[in-house]
Amino acid sequence: MNPLNATAAASGSAAPASPAGKPVILTGDRPTGALHLGHFVGSLRSRVAFQHDHKQFIMLADSQALTDNMDDTNKVHRNVMEVALDYLAVGIDPSLTTIFVQSQIPELAELTFYYLNLVTVARLERNPTVKQEIILRGFERDIPAGFLTYPASQAADISAFKAKIVPVGEDQIPMIEQTNEIVRRLNRMAGRDVLVECEARVPDIGRLPGVDGKAKMSKSLGNTINLGDTPEQISKQVKNVYTDPLHLKVSDPGHLEGNVAFIYLDAFDTEKAALEEMKAHYQRGGLGDSVVKKRLDTVLQEMLAPIRERREHFAKDRGEVMNMLKRGTAQAREVAAQTMDEVKSVLGLNYF
Amino acid sequence: MNPLNATAAASGSAAPASPAGKPVILTGDRPTGALHLGHFVGSLRSRVAFQHDHKQFIMLADSQALTDNMDDTNKVHRNVMEVALDYLAVGIDPSLTTIFVQSQIPELAELTFYYLNLVTVARLERNPTVKQEIILRGFERDIPAGFLTYPASQAADISAFKAKIVPVGEDQIPMIEQTNEIVRRLNRMAGRDVLVECEARVPDIGRLPGVDGKAKMSKSLGNTINLGDTPEQISKQVKNVYTDPLHLKVSDPGHLEGNVAFIYLDAFDTEKAALEEMKAHYQRGGLGDSVVKKRLDTVLQEMLAPIRERREHFAKDRGEVMNMLKRGTAQAREVAAQTMDEVKSVLGLNYF
Repeated sequence: MNPLNATAAASGSAAPASPAGKPVILTGDRPTGALHLGHFVGSLRSRVAFQHDHKQFIMLADSQALTDNMDDTNKVHRNVMEVALDYLAVGIDPSLTTIFVQSQIPELAELTFYYLNLVTVARLERNPTVKQEIILRGFERDIPAGFLTYPASQAADISAFKAKIVPVGEDQIPMIEQTNEIVRRLNRMAGRDVLVECEARVPDIGRLPGVDGKAKMSKSLGNTINLGDTPEQISKQVKNVYTDPLHLKVSDPGHLEGNVAFIYLDAFDTEKAALEEMKAHYQRGGLGDSVVKKRLDTVLQEMLAPIRERREHFAKDRGEVMNMLKRGTAQAREVAAQTMDEVKSVLGLNYF
Repeated sequence: MNPLNATAAASGSAAPASPAGKPVILTGDRPTGALHLGHFVGSLRSRVAFQHDHKQFIMLADSQALTDNMDDTNKVHRNVMEVALDYLAVGIDPSLTTIFVQSQIPELAELTFYYLNLVTVARLERNPTVKQEIILRGFERDIPAGFLTYPASQAADISAFKAKIVPVGEDQIPMIEQTNEIVRRLNRMAGRDVLVECEARVPDIGRLPGVDGKAKMSKSLGNTINLGDTPEQISKQVKNVYTDPLHLKVSDPGHLEGNVAFIYLDAFDTEKAALEEMKAHYQRGGLGDSVVKKRLDTVLQEMLAPIRERREHFAKDRGEVMNMLKRGTAQAREVAAQTMDEVKSVLGLNYF
């Protein structure tokens, strides 16, 4: 089954069929690098599930990626296709999910422009997520204005689609609060609920650490296993996986806390009973890291092989993937344009 | 001759004919109240002249007006028509000048959105015009983000039309500098001159004081004479005109400095020899304020009568004025959309 063809056969630019009552969900990724196991655990897996009982929009957030990548716009451009391939590879189906490119929906920039009047500079500066990210990115005083104001942009993205549910990490909850403040302010101006308040949905499962044991998988740290990695790349990273630094001899008892090999096995090994036995053996001593890593390699190779194959399949016709994005973007734009019209009416910006 | 019909007869939505080499000029007004003699002296008169040898765009800056009028969006909406009537009344001719409504060109908001990545928060905070206006409007810490970032919006407005000349007051020169910084930064990214640097053109004539002698005519101070005022309203304001507080008796010598009656006569009385005689008489004593004000009343009534009549004429068919704005906006949008496309290419935001 080819989801691209399924969409191509669907009815023109109409949005995917969605009975009233299906909750609208918006997620997305900044296209700045290949998606990896961290994305798979944290969001991609649940998106594949969400698409059956939600009206799901997934945004390739290229405009937002530019806020701190103006020195490498080419990276952002290139990764729009790469991330789209990752989506298709994991089973996000364009006939069930509307995948779109943020920059190709001018209404999102336009909504942002007006929302900037609904939030004060002081409020943006107090946003804990923005504060944190400013430190992370080392901006200090030279923050691009687009970076300080990106909560308004995020509010535009969410409210344009009247999304009710926004899956985010714990650290993004303040962004959702700020979105709702803007939504409420506009609704007060309108005297009715033109926009929809949203709620953060924080995944149960915690963040997957990098293969080196660092808290976060990150391309720049070289500690990722990407969804499109070759079998050799996967095996190489599995060898690098951080285990128990005190587990020097096979006969020593091993520890599970912070042991990335077992954290990954917990996340991906479906043979839970065997895994529990292996954990017990490791803890009492007599089980070498090489055995654990061999099991991890088997599990990851088996899980990633069909994803990689699907990725390679879709990558053969990038033109058709681009067409899929074009159709998704046209569907999404219809929705955003409708919201923009409503907001413009509230602001008295309707003349012709 | 009806300029509205002249435009209606022109070729569809094509921009007014303009041989290459005609310099592009952009001006505009925030539609927050009726235009008055201060606007007439400071900008409207020169726009009527510019339209013959420039490619002139005039923007009804409704989006910008919202940055500090979110509590009264209706005022902004209403005044788009009123200011358009003022333009037509003074002789701005839509067949020579492209008059457009800012909010109806989404590309201007979209350009602003991207320009926010080309300017830092610190740079915006240092902008002397913004600093000054923040104090004037009493915002203190509760500055709407859209107000802090409006230099980026102004850069978008100017550069979208590749305007070379921007007539502004002395106090707006820092805004022009900031526009050129953004223009240069984008051109550096592009490696070629995609956008055009502009220059401020500060009018020779100083700002016209209010009838009460205050530095600025302002609706909120009630010290204006509006272009659409009735003969009675004009006469009433002429009676209020601030003259020389030391000129108590007719026989006293009078002073010209800060004397609004003479400042207005200097600006509007075309009989210069007679005016010089009157000034000399006033200075040596023996000429009462009432005589001076009578002359001022005559001059203003004569000047404003045809403007008012034209205004009333156009106001009879507001639907047709709206159509004129719609056509001008469509013409302007073509130009802005072309620039937006070019900027998106530079940013790598072209996919489909």
